[in-house]
Amino acid sequence: MKKEIGPATVVHPHPVFVVGSFNKEKKPNMMAVSWGGICCSEPPCVAVSLREATQSYHNIIHSKAFTVNIPSTEYVREVDYVGIASGAETDKFRDTGLTPVESELVHAPLVEEFPYALECKLLETVEIGLHTQFIGEILGVIAEEKILGDHGKPDIEKVKPLIYGSFGNRGYYGIGVRLGDAFSIGKEYITE
Amino acid sequence: MKKEIGPATVVHPHPVFVVGSFNKEKKPNMMAVSWGGICCSEPPCVAVSLREATQSYHNIIHSKAFTVNIPSTEYVREVDYVGIASGAETDKFRDTGLTPVESELVHAPLVEEFPYALECKLLETVEIGLHTQFIGEILGVIAEEKILGDHGKPDIEKVKPLIYGSFGNRGYYGIGVRLGDAFSIGKEYITE
Repeated sequence: MKKEIGPATVVHPHPVFVVGSFNKEKKPNMMAVSWGGICCSEPPCVAVSLREATQSYHNIIHSKAFTVNIPSTEYVREVDYVGIASGAETDKFRDTGLTPVESELVHAPLVEEFPYALECKLLETVEIGLHTQFIGEILGVIAEEKILGDHGKPDIEKVKPLIYGSFGNRGYYGIGVRLGDAFSIGKEYITE
Repeated sequence: MKKEIGPATVVHPHPVFVVGSFNKEKKPNMMAVSWGGICCSEPPCVAVSLREATQSYHNIIHSKAFTVNIPSTEYVREVDYVGIASGAETDKFRDTGLTPVESELVHAPLVEEFPYALECKLLETVEIGLHTQFIGEILGVIAEEKILGDHGKPDIEKVKPLIYGSFGNRGYYGIGVRLGDAFSIGKEYITE
């Protein structure tokens, strides 16, 4: 039995990204973002949605750059703190012990301990409403060599990314069992 | 040891959405999309990125509406087929046996078998490059009652969503173990 539950902002899975940025004095900040994802292949782009109330919003407007860091499950406590605290009030790198490293490609900090990150130049700013979507062109991806898989790209089983449950169950999860190969296990439905 | 691997369009986790739309003759189509997500709280919005080469792109331009259906893992084969086949060449509902049901809120079909779906009115079209991002205002969410959790919203453990590995490992996954409560387990780092 289905019912209308109103216009909820929920999908599954929600990712857990840590967005890195510098303020005007080059103080590094990081923010937890679960509203975003890849949005274009050519140019390669990723989008993240932020409220103007955040420190990261103003950092990105000023520096026109950001990083999207992908944390592994072992950093779930640090990432949760990043989502609780405000960069305007504290130094989240100092508090968590995570290490900011300046990207060589864009004016933004990377989180050294995380397995990989996208290095982005601000391409477009889309004012939607309470959230502004920053579309970043991905100039490069910096990754731990040991987490690379097919085609030299990050392998989800080695990355061990975090998943966020959102409103219906505000838990963090890891990935589960592998169910099959994409672009393959559905071929049984091909009819010709 | 970290290395630059170039501008890859990869994050983790990638979701697996099935976007529903009608063509001019009201033939229902569905498309697998892993590039998208919630992008604004007020108005409540979700974004999906599509190439102009797809049938769904033209359907959405014409009907100014779409649905974002969240499949559960039990439909991984059907969903994979939806990602392989073209709606211009075949009827993916007929081929898979999935059932199209017209949304009562927008001019777009829902996938009856999936646990919930977002019903969206096209709000904005962002031409980024090879992909166009459709930002849809979420007018409603229709959900199976049995998958609802806290606050009457879909619970990730009951939904059992699909996760896509992307380039480094083109597998489908389910969710794994619960690691802790968001906005809670990171409190140990609060210093005041």
